[in-house]
Amino acid sequence: MQNISDIGEFGLIDHLTQDTKIYHTSTLKGIGDDAAVIAKNDTDCLLISTDLLVEGIHFDVVYTPLKHLGYKAVVVNVSDIVAMNGTATHITVALAISSKYTIEAMDELYKGIALACKKYKIDLVGGDTTSTPSGLVIAITVVGEAKKDKITHRHTAQKGDLICVTGDLGAAYIGLTLLEREKRVFMESPSIQPDFDGKSYPIQRQLKPDARIDMVEIFEELNLVPTAMIDISDGLASELFHLCKQSQVGCKIYEDKLPIDKTVYNTALEFNLDPTVCALNGGEDYELLFTVSQADYEKIKDNPDISVIGYVCDAEEGKKLITKSNSIHDLKAQGWDSFGQES
Amino acid sequence: MQNISDIGEFGLIDHLTQDTKIYHTSTLKGIGDDAAVIAKNDTDCLLISTDLLVEGIHFDVVYTPLKHLGYKAVVVNVSDIVAMNGTATHITVALAISSKYTIEAMDELYKGIALACKKYKIDLVGGDTTSTPSGLVIAITVVGEAKKDKITHRHTAQKGDLICVTGDLGAAYIGLTLLEREKRVFMESPSIQPDFDGKSYPIQRQLKPDARIDMVEIFEELNLVPTAMIDISDGLASELFHLCKQSQVGCKIYEDKLPIDKTVYNTALEFNLDPTVCALNGGEDYELLFTVSQADYEKIKDNPDISVIGYVCDAEEGKKLITKSNSIHDLKAQGWDSFGQES
Repeated sequence: MQNISDIGEFGLIDHLTQDTKIYHTSTLKGIGDDAAVIAKNDTDCLLISTDLLVEGIHFDVVYTPLKHLGYKAVVVNVSDIVAMNGTATHITVALAISSKYTIEAMDELYKGIALACKKYKIDLVGGDTTSTPSGLVIAITVVGEAKKDKITHRHTAQKGDLICVTGDLGAAYIGLTLLEREKRVFMESPSIQPDFDGKSYPIQRQLKPDARIDMVEIFEELNLVPTAMIDISDGLASELFHLCKQSQVGCKIYEDKLPIDKTVYNTALEFNLDPTVCALNGGEDYELLFTVSQADYEKIKDNPDISVIGYVCDAEEGKKLITKSNSIHDLKAQGWDSFGQES
Repeated sequence: MQNISDIGEFGLIDHLTQDTKIYHTSTLKGIGDDAAVIAKNDTDCLLISTDLLVEGIHFDVVYTPLKHLGYKAVVVNVSDIVAMNGTATHITVALAISSKYTIEAMDELYKGIALACKKYKIDLVGGDTTSTPSGLVIAITVVGEAKKDKITHRHTAQKGDLICVTGDLGAAYIGLTLLEREKRVFMESPSIQPDFDGKSYPIQRQLKPDARIDMVEIFEELNLVPTAMIDISDGLASELFHLCKQSQVGCKIYEDKLPIDKTVYNTALEFNLDPTVCALNGGEDYELLFTVSQADYEKIKDNPDISVIGYVCDAEEGKKLITKSNSIHDLKAQGWDSFGQES
């Protein structure tokens, strides 16, 4: 008997789905990307992705307002469609709810879901609701659409491509660290109010992240299709590993190019955390990691929200981090894995 | 504060989704049917449905082989697409798995999923896998397709229509009753082997049900589109209530017309259960409840797998059961509700 924690989430998925058969020619991409791709006709495709959020694993209701949780549950899914350079259009929401939750609590959750649906112009079209012996489980499936020739995959990065990220990294992890600290304080002394003075940015990035639907529009305006793309949910390093593995390439990443917000940087230091490690392995940023051919550098170089952090090299050259002091380290994908396995 | 058990699953769904907004004109039907309907073009539609199966609520791993569970999890979803008179094409599978499950256990689950995918020609195209503090949760979303003019809804039954069901009813419930009895025997005396002699039919109906995809073909061959349709997952009476409520009609059902398998009938009596109650409220049969106009009676009357069990009347006439002794009773929807509420 082998335990799942021995092989981790991605090992388990690889193991279980290695023999998956495809019966429909319309299935252009099945398991192994941010979303599946199904052809609607010669030019248009349907995208499908699904995500589970489990209480005690993905969220802690002690410090997560249910309205924020509902919003985030939608965002996490929308981000998968964005990572394919597509537009989310429909979701289904399935909930398993234990008896500790009231109707009012579920109202709050649904308010957050409705808010995200409004923001992202998504129709909530179905779901399922059931009781469960303990906790809360939120299973959302998102459907989106994209033009076939605009879809971005994980397996198509080419040697020489520039590696880019949107926004800044590590903020959601620092937000989580702040919330966990205040939870400990609260548990010890319930009368003490949480102290998030000046920390609203990382807190918001943790509790109410947004998906980068703006980038899909920007790519369209720039007439740019990234050579590969993935969203950053488990941490930059983990996503780089997915992208490099599936594209059969290596990468070189420059520490001094990693975009880190100033508050996030300083708060990391307050916690005796290395801001670079937070940016590499923090997770839940829902920014985009993508590659572009060097010929497209002109199109992105003036966009303040895009950082070129490195380039794609041969697989044999490995996956390297070049530090500020110019030393070279192997990148480690210590991204978050709910089964407790490095991914 | 109001508890969810006060209003039940369907009350909760109605409450949470009453203000749901629709942003896309392609959304032809959102929440409130077996599947959502999204227009692909003028003639073709996409169908989407999702179902959660939760350990301790929907299944008991003491007597449910995981391979059967995987198979059934797919079937439950396919049945929702069949209920729209559509064909299932793709699924996503999201799993929350506690540490008691081994890789070998998940292999068995996936073998069952793969078997159902093969039988129903469905592509498994994505999913999510996570740990959970306890139990096993299976969230499947199914995508299907249908011609717009063939889709069957719940809200379109008309006064005078004949009410029909496929196959026979109550078998899955009797199967469950047998399994629960043997579990109790096993708990008391683990050395005693389960005694299912002559009971394989109800056991199979509980553990390895099938979806009535054959009926979609038969309707096509008969050039028949039911006026309304729903699958029987929570029990015939509960589904009749959904159909009547949404169609704003009433119904008259004849006890002597309810199709009940002989083994199921006799086993019910052994358990001191009323076979009619089992057929009305048992649930999990995954047969189809549908209505046809009287003009279409000729098309179905010779099909041994279709039973005409009653007819649609005005809403004011209520929902009635006419017993074998010709007395008239109000139908009660005591279908299964995981929140412990009559539905």
